[in-house]
Amino acid sequence: MSDSEIRLYYKNVTTEVVGGEHGISPERLQELAGKTSPLISKLNEERRSGRIPYRDLPFNTKISQQVKELVARIDGDFENLVVLGIGGSALGNIALQTALNPYMYNIDENQRSGPRLFVFDNVDPPQFISFLEWLGPKLEKTVFNVVSKSGRTSETAAQFMIIRKLLIDKLGRESLRGHIVATTDPKEGTLRKIADDLNLQCLEVPDGVGGRFSVLSGVGLFSAAMCGIDIDSLLAGARDMDRRVSGEDFYKNPAAINAAINFHFYNTGKKISVMMPYSYALRDLADWYRQLWAESLGKKENKVGNEVFIGPTPVKALGTTDQHSQVQLYREGPNDKLFTFLEVQNFDKDINIGTAPDCAPELNFLAGKKMGMLLNSEKKATEYALLESKRPCLTIIFDKVDAYSVGQFIYLYEVTTSLAGALFDINPYDQPAVELGKEATFALMGKSDQEDLARQIQSLSEVDSNYLI
Amino acid sequence: MSDSEIRLYYKNVTTEVVGGEHGISPERLQELAGKTSPLISKLNEERRSGRIPYRDLPFNTKISQQVKELVARIDGDFENLVVLGIGGSALGNIALQTALNPYMYNIDENQRSGPRLFVFDNVDPPQFISFLEWLGPKLEKTVFNVVSKSGRTSETAAQFMIIRKLLIDKLGRESLRGHIVATTDPKEGTLRKIADDLNLQCLEVPDGVGGRFSVLSGVGLFSAAMCGIDIDSLLAGARDMDRRVSGEDFYKNPAAINAAINFHFYNTGKKISVMMPYSYALRDLADWYRQLWAESLGKKENKVGNEVFIGPTPVKALGTTDQHSQVQLYREGPNDKLFTFLEVQNFDKDINIGTAPDCAPELNFLAGKKMGMLLNSEKKATEYALLESKRPCLTIIFDKVDAYSVGQFIYLYEVTTSLAGALFDINPYDQPAVELGKEATFALMGKSDQEDLARQIQSLSEVDSNYLI
Repeated sequence: MSDSEIRLYYKNVTTEVVGGEHGISPERLQELAGKTSPLISKLNEERRSGRIPYRDLPFNTKISQQVKELVARIDGDFENLVVLGIGGSALGNIALQTALNPYMYNIDENQRSGPRLFVFDNVDPPQFISFLEWLGPKLEKTVFNVVSKSGRTSETAAQFMIIRKLLIDKLGRESLRGHIVATTDPKEGTLRKIADDLNLQCLEVPDGVGGRFSVLSGVGLFSAAMCGIDIDSLLAGARDMDRRVSGEDFYKNPAAINAAINFHFYNTGKKISVMMPYSYALRDLADWYRQLWAESLGKKENKVGNEVFIGPTPVKALGTTDQHSQVQLYREGPNDKLFTFLEVQNFDKDINIGTAPDCAPELNFLAGKKMGMLLNSEKKATEYALLESKRPCLTIIFDKVDAYSVGQFIYLYEVTTSLAGALFDINPYDQPAVELGKEATFALMGKSDQEDLARQIQSLSEVDSNYLI
Repeated sequence: MSDSEIRLYYKNVTTEVVGGEHGISPERLQELAGKTSPLISKLNEERRSGRIPYRDLPFNTKISQQVKELVARIDGDFENLVVLGIGGSALGNIALQTALNPYMYNIDENQRSGPRLFVFDNVDPPQFISFLEWLGPKLEKTVFNVVSKSGRTSETAAQFMIIRKLLIDKLGRESLRGHIVATTDPKEGTLRKIADDLNLQCLEVPDGVGGRFSVLSGVGLFSAAMCGIDIDSLLAGARDMDRRVSGEDFYKNPAAINAAINFHFYNTGKKISVMMPYSYALRDLADWYRQLWAESLGKKENKVGNEVFIGPTPVKALGTTDQHSQVQLYREGPNDKLFTFLEVQNFDKDINIGTAPDCAPELNFLAGKKMGMLLNSEKKATEYALLESKRPCLTIIFDKVDAYSVGQFIYLYEVTTSLAGALFDINPYDQPAVELGKEATFALMGKSDQEDLARQIQSLSEVDSNYLI
């Protein structure tokens, strides 16, 4: 276990740095403390009463034990692991892989100890066919992890039905059991029935844990463990953070301060929340965050049923790449954003920049410096430029990127989301607005008893040539 | 040459569909026509007078000839092509590759005719080291395309200096000429000097064309042509669109209507512009668009120097993936977004969904259907759900994704950006706000004569432990 802790740094959102119009004053922070503190207690109480089951995942040794046993049983049999899932059944898996395995993991066999990992969270025909063409002769050495609580998610069901046919056609019906792992509801649902019928190896999507809060369950842990990620350390990091975000002293609770600052800026016209990792490894955690934040906090009604149409829009921007794409807007466009940088102080590997050619002495300032120094200087430089334009900036500081710090980060943002939901007075755990689109898809795909809806959508979808150019 | 044309469909932004509060009325559209039409003429005039050189790129046969000759000369010698560039020197390259080559291009040698393509637009040490470790024994068969107008972009310069040392150390100084292609200013600058000194093979970043408008020059065309993309067809598509976006009848000019609609919604409180491709192939064109839109339209001052702090925030969301991440927010959060879907009517490959397991007849509605039908039904369903929530939606309809339609798309959005800049009354071709960050990076990396700035940033960057938790 590492002792690397992540830290939240928030001086650069204060009036002292970005001025009175765009910063948080000490008095306002004190007000926010007064508003937030009781919500921390309330959240702790809800958690103790079992109403926030995601909070207990890092302590559930049964789950990690099951995952490790399953991995031990099948590890070595497979060269490829294909996760079929979408949303909360994919973004955490992708984020863990990018964060904790080498960039060239899939391409360079010397850089991996586990199977190649592919996560399919879409139903794009040319993309899927390109993959299947490559997979052809490797099917025997491939295991599929189908992840869906219900099994009725159209995308995952469609992928599964294609893979099932492929396995039956190529390797015979009896191959299904050995080549599919189902992560699903322990008791009911379509995938549960299929898994029972085929006697599949299974992991559980825990009860009462929404997809976007499920990465520290079998949903996210299985592919991670298969690919050699230290899931014990990941969970230990989350437990460490649990201690810090349970504390009822606002000023010592990073989730509380983070939630309160985000709440404040949303309410003062900064409705866009940009997460900007200065680390390729942390890149896809920003996509995981995008779902967590958008789906949890984007709500039409508050807890007593009044229309509020609330929700900050999360945006992912990668440092330094997006400096050359977005920073012009971020500095000179409307001051409507709160920035959260992710900064890594120590890279586990670094490389020296070579000498400058003799004919270009103007590049000497880079010669012999570490690339990591350049990356972190770019972060400091960009933050400096944003602060000059009075744009508020938070930073999450990673001493280093490892399973322990990533576990902390995940848990920090989950609890930040719970507290932000409490501050906004909305339910952060539901997602009522996604149902209509699902029903509409069922209808368009010809599901019986949905003909009326199908006709309604078709008429809306019919192209009116007066508006087509 | 294909005759597949892309189309803009805009009925679903009108009052007829999304209502009076959130839609555009026929009268308002007429007003916008009145405002925009003279700007089309003015833009055409500026273009004729040579002040908008990106407009002429698709007609410049010299460029494509140079690119094709260079490709013919070195094609076959290399198994790997590595582009070193950032921002406008990378996003177009990545977008073309994702759009027009198979998903498994780099991994499956049966699915590519050209070299593997890697585009490095960051300076992340673990990422770059992972790549170099893999590359080790393959260096001999690798060509590097360094893309920078000035050669002083820190990221690209640093990468180049690392690669230069590697080539000298492993293959000898004389290997530089054969393994590096420079795309840079034809006359001056750091990379120009280096290229002349080493007698490198070169392509030009054309005069007066900003990075974000340069994809149809040597910047974007070389890696595309190396990887087997039909650049003639790409340029032909752009020329086809040029005809359509030059027309001075507002109602027949897709760039004018697109710009006017975007302008209208920004001014009525919808300051976020979401591009949502329902096609993996079109995914990275949304990142290319993000730069084009943000850097061109995010401006502090209008053309007469008044402070305006204008700029829509572009957001990329991928269908169907992001339905399961963002649509809850998009439907129930603030009505502050304009949506632009990219829809593909015909996929060049498609696949049938298999039968449902006997125990799960509830999945029968998917059985035997095409995956492409599912993807397009999801698009229709999501748009339907957004319209039910009165969120305005545009669609760019691709008959199919090929070089011809992608060329059209690129040119459509470039000219849309020019016209939107004219409507917002700002200069869409500069990027004054990125300079400070560049200077600050130089200073922090120890460039001489920048010590004062370095000290200023360092003092701001020093962590104040009162705000660290």
